[in-house]
Amino acid sequence: MSTGFFGNIGPVKYEGPDSDNELAFRHYNPDEIVLGKRMEDHLRFAVCYWHNFVWPGNDPFGGQTFERPWFGETMDLARLKADVAFEMFDILGAPFYTFHDHDVRPEGETYSESVKRLNEIADHFQGKMEAGGPKLLWGTANLFSNRRYMAGAATNPDPDVFAYAAATVKACMDVTQRLGGQNYVLWGGREGYETLLNTDMGRELDQLGRFLSMVVDYKHKIGFEGAILVEPKPQEPTKHQYDFDVATVYGFLKRYGLENEVKVNIEQGHAILAGHSFEHELALAGALGILGSIDVNRNDYQSGWDTDQFPNNVPEVALAYYQILAHGGFTTGGTNFDAKLRRQSLDPVDLIAAHIGGMDVCARGLKAAAKMIEDGALSNPLDERYAGWNQPENKAMLKGERSLEDIAARVERENLDPEPRSGRQERLENIVNRYV
Amino acid sequence: MSTGFFGNIGPVKYEGPDSDNELAFRHYNPDEIVLGKRMEDHLRFAVCYWHNFVWPGNDPFGGQTFERPWFGETMDLARLKADVAFEMFDILGAPFYTFHDHDVRPEGETYSESVKRLNEIADHFQGKMEAGGPKLLWGTANLFSNRRYMAGAATNPDPDVFAYAAATVKACMDVTQRLGGQNYVLWGGREGYETLLNTDMGRELDQLGRFLSMVVDYKHKIGFEGAILVEPKPQEPTKHQYDFDVATVYGFLKRYGLENEVKVNIEQGHAILAGHSFEHELALAGALGILGSIDVNRNDYQSGWDTDQFPNNVPEVALAYYQILAHGGFTTGGTNFDAKLRRQSLDPVDLIAAHIGGMDVCARGLKAAAKMIEDGALSNPLDERYAGWNQPENKAMLKGERSLEDIAARVERENLDPEPRSGRQERLENIVNRYV
Amino acid sequence: MSTGFFGNIGPVKYEGPDSDNELAFRHYNPDEIVLGKRMEDHLRFAVCYWHNFVWPGNDPFGGQTFERPWFGETMDLARLKADVAFEMFDILGAPFYTFHDHDVRPEGETYSESVKRLNEIADHFQGKMEAGGPKLLWGTANLFSNRRYMAGAATNPDPDVFAYAAATVKACMDVTQRLGGQNYVLWGGREGYETLLNTDMGRELDQLGRFLSMVVDYKHKIGFEGAILVEPKPQEPTKHQYDFDVATVYGFLKRYGLENEVKVNIEQGHAILAGHSFEHELALAGALGILGSIDVNRNDYQSGWDTDQFPNNVPEVALAYYQILAHGGFTTGGTNFDAKLRRQSLDPVDLIAAHIGGMDVCARGLKAAAKMIEDGALSNPLDERYAGWNQPENKAMLKGERSLEDIAARVERENLDPEPRSGRQERLENIVNRYV
Amino acid sequence: MSTGFFGNIGPVKYEGPDSDNELAFRHYNPDEIVLGKRMEDHLRFAVCYWHNFVWPGNDPFGGQTFERPWFGETMDLARLKADVAFEMFDILGAPFYTFHDHDVRPEGETYSESVKRLNEIADHFQGKMEAGGPKLLWGTANLFSNRRYMAGAATNPDPDVFAYAAATVKACMDVTQRLGGQNYVLWGGREGYETLLNTDMGRELDQLGRFLSMVVDYKHKIGFEGAILVEPKPQEPTKHQYDFDVATVYGFLKRYGLENEVKVNIEQGHAILAGHSFEHELALAGALGILGSIDVNRNDYQSGWDTDQFPNNVPEVALAYYQILAHGGFTTGGTNFDAKLRRQSLDPVDLIAAHIGGMDVCARGLKAAAKMIEDGALSNPLDERYAGWNQPENKAMLKGERSLEDIAARVERENLDPEPRSGRQERLENIVNRYV
Repeated sequence: MSTGFFGNIGPVKYEGPDSDNELAFRHYNPDEIVLGKRMEDHLRFAVCYWHNFVWPGNDPFGGQTFERPWFGETMDLARLKADVAFEMFDILGAPFYTFHDHDVRPEGETYSESVKRLNEIADHFQGKMEAGGPKLLWGTANLFSNRRYMAGAATNPDPDVFAYAAATVKACMDVTQRLGGQNYVLWGGREGYETLLNTDMGRELDQLGRFLSMVVDYKHKIGFEGAILVEPKPQEPTKHQYDFDVATVYGFLKRYGLENEVKVNIEQGHAILAGHSFEHELALAGALGILGSIDVNRNDYQSGWDTDQFPNNVPEVALAYYQILAHGGFTTGGTNFDAKLRRQSLDPVDLIAAHIGGMDVCARGLKAAAKMIEDGALSNPLDERYAGWNQPENKAMLKGERSLEDIAARVERENLDPEPRSGRQERLENIVNRYV
Repeated sequence: MSTGFFGNIGPVKYEGPDSDNELAFRHYNPDEIVLGKRMEDHLRFAVCYWHNFVWPGNDPFGGQTFERPWFGETMDLARLKADVAFEMFDILGAPFYTFHDHDVRPEGETYSESVKRLNEIADHFQGKMEAGGPKLLWGTANLFSNRRYMAGAATNPDPDVFAYAAATVKACMDVTQRLGGQNYVLWGGREGYETLLNTDMGRELDQLGRFLSMVVDYKHKIGFEGAILVEPKPQEPTKHQYDFDVATVYGFLKRYGLENEVKVNIEQGHAILAGHSFEHELALAGALGILGSIDVNRNDYQSGWDTDQFPNNVPEVALAYYQILAHGGFTTGGTNFDAKLRRQSLDPVDLIAAHIGGMDVCARGLKAAAKMIEDGALSNPLDERYAGWNQPENKAMLKGERSLEDIAARVERENLDPEPRSGRQERLENIVNRYV
Repeated sequence: MSTGFFGNIGPVKYEGPDSDNELAFRHYNPDEIVLGKRMEDHLRFAVCYWHNFVWPGNDPFGGQTFERPWFGETMDLARLKADVAFEMFDILGAPFYTFHDHDVRPEGETYSESVKRLNEIADHFQGKMEAGGPKLLWGTANLFSNRRYMAGAATNPDPDVFAYAAATVKACMDVTQRLGGQNYVLWGGREGYETLLNTDMGRELDQLGRFLSMVVDYKHKIGFEGAILVEPKPQEPTKHQYDFDVATVYGFLKRYGLENEVKVNIEQGHAILAGHSFEHELALAGALGILGSIDVNRNDYQSGWDTDQFPNNVPEVALAYYQILAHGGFTTGGTNFDAKLRRQSLDPVDLIAAHIGGMDVCARGLKAAAKMIEDGALSNPLDERYAGWNQPENKAMLKGERSLEDIAARVERENLDPEPRSGRQERLENIVNRYV
Repeated sequence: MSTGFFGNIGPVKYEGPDSDNELAFRHYNPDEIVLGKRMEDHLRFAVCYWHNFVWPGNDPFGGQTFERPWFGETMDLARLKADVAFEMFDILGAPFYTFHDHDVRPEGETYSESVKRLNEIADHFQGKMEAGGPKLLWGTANLFSNRRYMAGAATNPDPDVFAYAAATVKACMDVTQRLGGQNYVLWGGREGYETLLNTDMGRELDQLGRFLSMVVDYKHKIGFEGAILVEPKPQEPTKHQYDFDVATVYGFLKRYGLENEVKVNIEQGHAILAGHSFEHELALAGALGILGSIDVNRNDYQSGWDTDQFPNNVPEVALAYYQILAHGGFTTGGTNFDAKLRRQSLDPVDLIAAHIGGMDVCARGLKAAAKMIEDGALSNPLDERYAGWNQPENKAMLKGERSLEDIAARVERENLDPEPRSGRQERLENIVNRYV
């Protein structure tokens, strides 16, 4: 029985590029085969709970703009919210969803009550999932909204907050496992500092390392088969966050011996805030072997905060999926829309249309990327560019079989004077533009 | 016999804060004791060769503004340049200097000739150093200006460029050792990419790892006792550089097993370009155990490129030295002015005055930082803030003796509900302002 | 009768630089004479209502951290809030305060009720002001928090919103006049756009021009003698705001013929968001004749949003007051702390200490700036630099008495070949450092 | 007779989207009719002289990478350069070109000699233009490279530099007129400051106003029928440039009464440096009536300096042409490629391919924009959004026929309580994505 929130908006269908139906897919065709796999199985779209069903439309200078019948702090409203959410997942045909504990149930007076409520809602979800609803891409704990976390969760100077956060993550991992979640995510929105004047960074990094190690241990203990994912972000809400970007997270994982246990969930908007392109973060995570999943929402290039907008630029998205495909595509990961409507987009139809637009942009990007892969459009020139390294002497140099002295002697002996060759950037950009 | 370039400007003396002599130190007093050590031995100032004696004053939209009698590509002019340089070191009473191979000799037609010229100039330097000139803080190779390096040195797709760069570093390390250099620095200005379209990042990181490993091996081979330092910078000249910031370098060192062999040389301006404060980079390097040396030149906060200006903000510099002192002060490292005059500052006196200003700002910063250390002005509140972690149960948690389940059970059992305490940021800022 | 909120914190006194009393002024000495005027009369400090008494400590990822007895939406609580506010003004000895309508009374069900409530609170204020409380530096209307303004106030596509905003400003101007306000401020937080796709910029600028013209007309109508001030900000909350920076506001005023009627209220943090230094915005406003008042709160240089922190860097603040003094100092304007505590600074004492720190920093900046003015430290070199323009032929050129042809003929005839002279930037920076 | 520089690369032809010829247009079809006009006449492409034929490939950390037979400072080489340039214009079928005086002739020992050389080269150009070469979109003077301009041209503290610059502009305007130039451009790369400490901004703005007024006077004097265009840029090379952005230039023009005489040449990269999107600057210039011409080269979003890359993102370019078409399209203006190869793109074919790619991207953007215009895809929703303003009472309000009091009385009387409507941003973005 429908909640009626979305009126008569029915399931969104693929109608092809020429459709003028605002509520149809023009590019996302789940069953279409791309590089030998269904498009749905490549993209693995997930719709998030928080921006769509929890956020009231406020910003730092304004209050609530959305008026939703489920806003409020009771369990009944939480169930109504879930009903609407699963209706939307169904309308969009989204194969996955994602949530924080805080999104789905009102916080209890005590830790125990909060956990109990979470479990009740999980039961409600389970019913819907068994009735044909989407799967859970990942679950996570909100360790940033409540004032107890204002100075950090794992990195709090107060060990009781560390403990409270640890207990909360345990509960969320339990629920994620029960719901068949394919990953468990940690975003450390408060794991950082406002000022170094009151912060012992070395100590706090050790706290964070310990916390993450416990999470990994618990995963093995309970036999959770999904991936543990950390989500980098450089700043906001804090001045500096310890999971600044992919490179920082990698160094952190190495420091605490976790690089084979934990991967990253990369968000386009966070990449931009860190001064990187999205494809940079993806390529780096791929090169380091820690590419897990993505949040495909973009930030505005002229705004210095997290705008979490739906993706709308196909050339950019194509380069992102190119990196993902080039590193083997998703395994447990997927494409999550951690995107929110602009606060002026008040209508239910805006929620649906925004996701359709995002899904179509991703589908176009994926198809362009796949075609570039098939054609070797970028990989062939790349192989040619580095071909010199296939020479035995050069291989030996790279393998560590030559010392600085050996090499210096050879440079002198052979009177090496290497001549540069064109990097061909513009010609490669032109090639990409044939595909997007 | 003087070159006459600086006219009658004599050695700069300490005259105290009330002096109105533009060419005196008002705060830098080398023999003054700070925290039990001479100020000179704390700060370990170095004057760089390149910005002062090589840079012609050009910028991306304009050509040469400086007219120096030593500009030109002959060995005689290189010796004249050295004579002027050592005169300036002497006038300033700088205890150290720094240089690239490219700064001090014209490049030869061949690798061998370039090395020969470098050695000739090193002889010239050696004479001056033995006659009472400054010591060498560090030497380095310029692996970025010549067109052969346009696509990288160690990370070049052409292995011959890798080899040429390796041979060049060997020569520079030899000279650095001969001159008693206390460190050897690598700044990878071209180790990065312009576009991912023509770049295999994983491969290039491996090349860079190999290169740095060879440098470390050679250091041990020749018994060089100084530190090997990598200098992070996020971008410029390339779009993205592999040594982006301290955290990135740390992860890189861990990846290639070099974290105990290599430290960082941190530049304020590079920190800013990477989206960090200078004290952040220092504090992080300190926490990770890789803090080596600093370039104290600042960037303009409103400009998006490397402006390399002399430091002029005492409160900022004080926080930087606070981090350095808090992590034990310099050992082989020091305070290098990788700073350049504005291109409109045409006169010889500008060179001298700019360094005096920078040295005085650093001296004020150091003294303020030392006083804060002595008073426990920041460390006492810090200890108090984390005091909860001294409790046995909390220590156990941090040592890894508690699992998520243990902790969750305790949270539930003790009905933990931690109450936040003030972070006191403004009050700590007020404390700092008593010292600067 | 005290509310007790501040416990036993009494009036803050000047105790001089050596005091170690956290709750004393060490530099702000209201009666000290600077450039022939009392320090208080130079600085004209104002404490703002909103950040101190309304903001709950939330940020984009977290909720309320402050727990204040006056939080809530009743008139009784509004009166309690006022009582605490005036207690704080009194403790600090602040000569002025500032407020929005929205800060001081709960919004009514109707426009009329909102106005009625505003007037009731104004009566309450009036009693306190007559009993020795501070004066009103400026009043303003909050045209950004309520959802009706989500798409703009004056620039809303819905003319009813324009009307509602106009009516609201009228009410706030009436109250400001009644309370003897010395200025009336407009900050157009929603006057801008989220996307050009739904925006007619030309039309919206005309709406804004009309709105401001009506405000000016009304000022004259009611005989309000204060200044009308516009507060530039480039973005946040919107993607682009029409009052981007001082230069933009000036062009806008010229376009609508308001440049002699309206001045600017410049905020340091907004300057930084616009890519300018604070002193740039002040110098430009001074040069254009529209410098009105300042908000002295700073932004963090590494954060891309409005952090509204208390000023803490004396050299920066000194350069700001230098510009203000060089353009004649404040007339109706003053120094407003539009600054908020960090959300972790929970304690009442944090509110007091933060203002003390800011006031002391400003006092130090003012004294340094005044001394530079007295000494001609910067103005003498400046006069010398432009001295060539005092020559008759050059004066004629600048007055418009020479054409391009005249000048070209003279260049050719006199074979002009101007030789550049040093800009002396570093030496001037050193001079400043003698004062700060 | 060909110089042979481009080998056997012949004229580039349109071959349609499916062509796999790297040296063919796939989208730019000059004779194709778009909105009733030939595509060539819409886009009015111009190729610039400086980046293609003068720039040696240096960057702030590296020297020359390009080796061109015409590099050098003789008139013979200048003629060879011209021959190659016009060959490239011909190969590309570019209808226009653009140049600075400094690009086309070596500077003479004296002003007179420089002018003489400029005229000689202009004769050479004239021959080529009469023989079927492209037309001149605009000419301009380089008032930034020579050290005499290091502290500004019009805004120099030395009036002789002002005079020298004025004389130079006269000579360039003369040549531009002689060659039938359709515009004359002023980019004030040095009209700004490095530090406020040595700058009198008010005085310098007056100098700049006087200079521009003389240019306008001279235009009328000689009967030049083209437009005078100012090119905004916020910074680089200086810390702050007076022509910061479109809004700043507009205010400047108003201040000196030039708003009907001068328009702007807007560059995408400069817009980005100023914190704006390209379409913002275009829309604003359109709204203010000063939209003249464009430089279509983009900047990298992650780099803080002017990267001058060829455009490669069709959705972005489409929104730019949408603004241009919506404001009536170009009259004297056009689309200039002020774009440079990456310094690693060494080969002649890179020069050709880069322009082909840029021209195709613009053609795709133009066609998408034209179709949106034809369909009213964005303008119909826009009209509907503002429809309330067509009501008589609202028109009266906007025309200035209502006072604040009138409006407040009506709000109270009618108990106005406006209800917000969805801004529909995501749905409009989806519409755009149907076209690009």
